[in-house]
Amino acid sequence: MSLLRDLGELVSSDRILTDELDRLCYSYDSSFISRLHRFIPDAVVLPRSVEETAAVVKYAARKGIPIVPRGAGSGESGGAVPVQGGIVMDMSTWKDVVELDVANMQILVRPGLVHDELNRLLAPHGLFFPPDPGSSKMATIGGMVANNSSGLRAIKYGVTENYVLGLEVVLPDGRVITTGGQDCRALKNVSGLNLTKLFVGSEGVLGVITGIRLRLWPRPPSRGLVMAAFPRLEDAPKAVMAVFQAGMLPSGMEIMDSSAIEAVNLYRPDLNLPLCEAILLFEVDGDPPGVAWQVEQIRSICEQWAREVEEALEEERMTQLWEGRSLVAAAVSRLRSEGTRAFIGEDISVPLSRVPEALRGIKSLADKHQIKVVIFGHIGDGNLHTAPVIDPDDEGEVARVQHLADDIHRLALRLQGTVTGEHGVGFVRSQYARQEHGLALDAMFQVKKALDPLGIMNPGKIFPSPVKGAEADGKGTASTAE
Amino acid sequence: MSLLRDLGELVSSDRILTDELDRLCYSYDSSFISRLHRFIPDAVVLPRSVEETAAVVKYAARKGIPIVPRGAGSGESGGAVPVQGGIVMDMSTWKDVVELDVANMQILVRPGLVHDELNRLLAPHGLFFPPDPGSSKMATIGGMVANNSSGLRAIKYGVTENYVLGLEVVLPDGRVITTGGQDCRALKNVSGLNLTKLFVGSEGVLGVITGIRLRLWPRPPSRGLVMAAFPRLEDAPKAVMAVFQAGMLPSGMEIMDSSAIEAVNLYRPDLNLPLCEAILLFEVDGDPPGVAWQVEQIRSICEQWAREVEEALEEERMTQLWEGRSLVAAAVSRLRSEGTRAFIGEDISVPLSRVPEALRGIKSLADKHQIKVVIFGHIGDGNLHTAPVIDPDDEGEVARVQHLADDIHRLALRLQGTVTGEHGVGFVRSQYARQEHGLALDAMFQVKKALDPLGIMNPGKIFPSPVKGAEADGKGTASTAE
Repeated sequence: MSLLRDLGELVSSDRILTDELDRLCYSYDSSFISRLHRFIPDAVVLPRSVEETAAVVKYAARKGIPIVPRGAGSGESGGAVPVQGGIVMDMSTWKDVVELDVANMQILVRPGLVHDELNRLLAPHGLFFPPDPGSSKMATIGGMVANNSSGLRAIKYGVTENYVLGLEVVLPDGRVITTGGQDCRALKNVSGLNLTKLFVGSEGVLGVITGIRLRLWPRPPSRGLVMAAFPRLEDAPKAVMAVFQAGMLPSGMEIMDSSAIEAVNLYRPDLNLPLCEAILLFEVDGDPPGVAWQVEQIRSICEQWAREVEEALEEERMTQLWEGRSLVAAAVSRLRSEGTRAFIGEDISVPLSRVPEALRGIKSLADKHQIKVVIFGHIGDGNLHTAPVIDPDDEGEVARVQHLADDIHRLALRLQGTVTGEHGVGFVRSQYARQEHGLALDAMFQVKKALDPLGIMNPGKIFPSPVKGAEADGKGTASTAE
Repeated sequence: MSLLRDLGELVSSDRILTDELDRLCYSYDSSFISRLHRFIPDAVVLPRSVEETAAVVKYAARKGIPIVPRGAGSGESGGAVPVQGGIVMDMSTWKDVVELDVANMQILVRPGLVHDELNRLLAPHGLFFPPDPGSSKMATIGGMVANNSSGLRAIKYGVTENYVLGLEVVLPDGRVITTGGQDCRALKNVSGLNLTKLFVGSEGVLGVITGIRLRLWPRPPSRGLVMAAFPRLEDAPKAVMAVFQAGMLPSGMEIMDSSAIEAVNLYRPDLNLPLCEAILLFEVDGDPPGVAWQVEQIRSICEQWAREVEEALEEERMTQLWEGRSLVAAAVSRLRSEGTRAFIGEDISVPLSRVPEALRGIKSLADKHQIKVVIFGHIGDGNLHTAPVIDPDDEGEVARVQHLADDIHRLALRLQGTVTGEHGVGFVRSQYARQEHGLALDAMFQVKKALDPLGIMNPGKIFPSPVKGAEADGKGTASTAE
């Protein structure tokens, strides 16, 4: 109650939640693991200004209370889950566009703005923000920055960090800084240490992001699609490499495996996707003649290995072809009547040359653990999404799917990949941090500790042991058994 | 002498320089200011292994001796100059390609490899490393990473940081870390704090970079050029904006002002550049039909304002047209028989909409200080290179050109730009850091201090006061009057 009273002096009381039912809604995100726990925050605040945010952070620092920033909760790593309690800062209602500067191709927004809303408001100006997460209709820009999100178009356009010119951040002691130059709107700037890129992808462990200046890109006038059905899984990555070798950089290169195809056909029989080991979808964008040329090139490359190749340049047909891919996530649960997709072990990324091993490896692990698995993802950058379908009420399956995820993560590391290509570490993948980063993890922790000596910012994330435990050894190293 | 003896136990003696004449060669880089001083190192070592590098850093940490990493010395900010003495680490002779992984479009190189050599060895594989500095034939990859360099193609392809997958770094205490995953070759990876991007552009103040894993891009099969001559300077940025608005992203958008045109015509009369207030060069690349289409589009956009527009799709003609732009740097000194180009105040970047003000402003400042100035640069991202031509033996001119540079830097900040778009801060621009970054400078210093508590790594760079002075206040803030 004293927390409620104290917060009431800092934030308008209608934007403080302390009822148990309200707080329960903030105890999980989209990750499967978070739903197996009850990480209930002590309070939730919904800030709408830098001053409010800084005041709450200052208060938390004084009291030693954890602060957990949160966007839409669409994350799949538990990043926004208060594993050590404390105050959740729900930024999703603070969604103003502070300034759209069309001439200088940039926009300053508050963290709660949703990705899809951003691109809809940019469209009339011939501009767009290229990163394109599957959760576009939910994901906030603040969450995307905190996770360095990407999605379908990363292979050509890069990830969120490529578009962040500067950030307004409330540091763990309540100071407010602006990275990238406090008044700067230049598109290129190498002045000072690159704090902007340090904060992008920092998953809330270094501060609370309150403002985001994004560079925007001219929207290409034309788009085309090629869909190719491969009888042999191993041939799909060959086609991808051949497209690169021909000097092309498609804006999307997506893969669906046979289970994904099966799921989509069950969900939407009218789409009638060709049955095969893998379907690849290539999207190219740019100028009209270039798009047409590239579509032809990609078609003839695919025809070396594919059984069926279809191309589309008309918007309606592209939407249909693309629909199969975008429906995978929803369709997955159709594979079992009592099944639910568990978001776990879902985001490995491996070198392109190891994609076939990864695909076969995941299938064989799924067999070993007797879990039905669907695979799809961004093959162009080796980022594979695994969707296990389980009965969440079956304790045996719940245990097995966790072992499966662990094996998938270890497979990714064995194949010189990473446990997370775009979803983040959060608390569900922190146990792999030492293996993945070695001594660099200690350097990360030194940086964390320099900015957050009290360890109040999103404790229990990224680093394999709670920050407090690591601090206790006094050597500035993240102590962990692994 | 004891330094020589100590180093001799760590590095082969033929790669330790202590003769005064040898050391003198390391007292300056390409910046004008460094040539006004005599910052002579106590010793120079030329490491050829991680072990040697780490051993020297450990030794320096024990003795409290500054370490200054250096590439080709082509920097224009004094970044590689030992302003507090100590040991210069000349990385330029350590230039192995550790591994070229064509299938996974990446390469692991040592820091001394020269940019042009890298792209020449990639060409047969259909790959390239897009950042394209003017100093391509000298600049080392290590130096490019330390400065986050870019150049002609940044507007489409981004800067060096976009291509760094991971780094091997010797930390200031001699520990060796690998950022981006110690064994990772995935093209996308969001695991852990982004140390890679923190080290890119850190100008040697956080550690010594000993290995660089770069992602490579497919080399586009085709290229085209448009040159347009604008009677009015103000119309050039309008054409640039119109090209963006049409949904195009050229691989280069370069500007030469009337003085640059004059200089080139004096140097190479056969090129016979059209006399006008500004020449723009647009380069587009991609697939053949797309390039031809874009060249036509850009031509007709330019024709709204330009007096003369020429397009080229043949290699020979493109080389000729491009030559004018690439000769500017060399041609500048032709404007005065006894003149030399002073590399000072040479790298501001401003928002696109402020480019006309910046151009007129620089010209008027040049008049005020009675210094002849040539302007050229990467107009697509507002990055303008100013080349003052002075008599370096004239003390009055030497003083005036420093005042001019100061005024240009302040103009850039007033126009919501930055003092450095791509060359770095070093020691010649550190006095603007507080104005440019405000409180964020303190956060940068906290990060610096966390990784380099003794302040041995490249002291006197980026931060406005020597690190030691800032440390003395005990509050972890960079103390500075400004």
